Amino acid sequence: MELSLYTKAAEVSEAHAKGKHVVVIDVLRTSSTIVAASENGVERIIPVATVEDAKKLLPTLDPKNALLGGEREGKKIEGFDLGNSPLEYSPDAVAGKTVILSTSNGTVAIAGSAPAREIVIACFLNLSAVVAHLASARPKGVVVLCAGNMGQLSIEDFVCGGLLVDRMDRATRARLSLNDGASAARTLAATMTDIGDVVRNSSHGRRLADLGFAADLEFCASLDKCSTVPVAMDGRIAGREAGRR
Amino acid sequence: MELSLYTKAAEVSEAHAKGKHVVVIDVLRTSSTIVAASENGVERIIPVATVEDAKKLLPTLDPKNALLGGEREGKKIEGFDLGNSPLEYSPDAVAGKTVILSTSNGTVAIAGSAPAREIVIACFLNLSAVVAHLASARPKGVVVLCAGNMGQLSIEDFVCGGLLVDRMDRATRARLSLNDGASAARTLAATMTDIGDVVRNSSHGRRLADLGFAADLEFCASLDKCSTVPVAMDGRIAGREAGRR
Repeated sequence: MELSLYTKAAEVSEAHAKGKHVVVIDVLRTSSTIVAASENGVERIIPVATVEDAKKLLPTLDPKNALLGGEREGKKIEGFDLGNSPLEYSPDAVAGKTVILSTSNGTVAIAGSAPAREIVIACFLNLSAVVAHLASARPKGVVVLCAGNMGQLSIEDFVCGGLLVDRMDRATRARLSLNDGASAARTLAATMTDIGDVVRNSSHGRRLADLGFAADLEFCASLDKCSTVPVAMDGRIAGREAGRR
Repeated sequence: MELSLYTKAAEVSEAHAKGKHVVVIDVLRTSSTIVAASENGVERIIPVATVEDAKKLLPTLDPKNALLGGEREGKKIEGFDLGNSPLEYSPDAVAGKTVILSTSNGTVAIAGSAPAREIVIACFLNLSAVVAHLASARPKGVVVLCAGNMGQLSIEDFVCGGLLVDRMDRATRARLSLNDGASAARTLAATMTDIGDVVRNSSHGRRLADLGFAADLEFCASLDKCSTVPVAMDGRIAGREAGRR
């Protein structure tokens, strides 16, 4: 089975994604936010690329149950209910709700993966659950899409992707054929003994700490804290009940 | 001093390159070919993006001293004098000559770095010479541009870039500020004990071996075999005499 890893969204063309299982990794923070919200009972998440798309969509939903979430340059978008901190997506805030989510890198990566067979949202929080999900799905091919930041490689996404590659290799009977990105990420991840250090020392992590989000970094670096595997279908991410394995 | 590494040409905008020293790494094989040709006395190399550009330029040069070199999909371009194998660029073939060179990834990366203060061509063959050159230049900032292959990360370029980062850190007194790509590549390179294995097992290396270029892989994996530092200025790469340090 082919397992290819790409260091950012722009590398993956429709042809790469078509018919494959695409795993979108944006540790800081979109994937972590989606996983936390799903774990905490959100009904569904609708990822959109722009603020305008989010505002247009809102009036079409039940106003009692719909929230706007997202960030630009790390900060909550003006007029939105929630930012992009996974800690905001508590059961009190999101259980039973629909969240329209727009973030700088992550939701763009999800939107760009549309022709995939299935789009899985992964991060350190749900890594084991994702591996189990993929191993049982027996996919034709897996594309690991590290969202990156501002068009560049993000080390926290690359290391998370490398851990995923390593665990997939142990979990599946199929012989994996890795691209250079997957090999490099796997080898790099094997040298990393402390995920918290990787996340804190990353370029994006340092910027978020400066913005006051140090607690997010600790949360996003927690390995296997969640059992939910959010899956995007037809532009919607179903919450805990559907995603739970 | 900022030292940023990018995993492929498309990541580097003009704004990234402007005023910086840009190091272009395309181990398989453009950088290795340019370094070998320079070491073997080529007078100058003119990198061009397309075959048409190469054919248009040829009649403007002295026909006794001008050669066309380059590849598409690894193979010599029809009607060209030389392919993109560094072993072809022997003293007999290139000493005193001007070579117009067009390759799939490398010459495109060089062309895209135009606003740089200086464009340096690097590979395993001349790594120590490049580090010495950069350390003495005291640059404002260094951009390491790994050319990649077909728009993806190439592990041989990424590892070569990581070795360069590590040696730069040892060679300069300035404190280096690394981006995530530079940190990841450096850590990965530290795990690699055999450059020949990296090059042979890379995706591009396996394809070149299938095309009959196994000898090129051994050559391109030779560390510090050459002392030439080719530098591109105004779209031309001066040969050995200008580049020798």
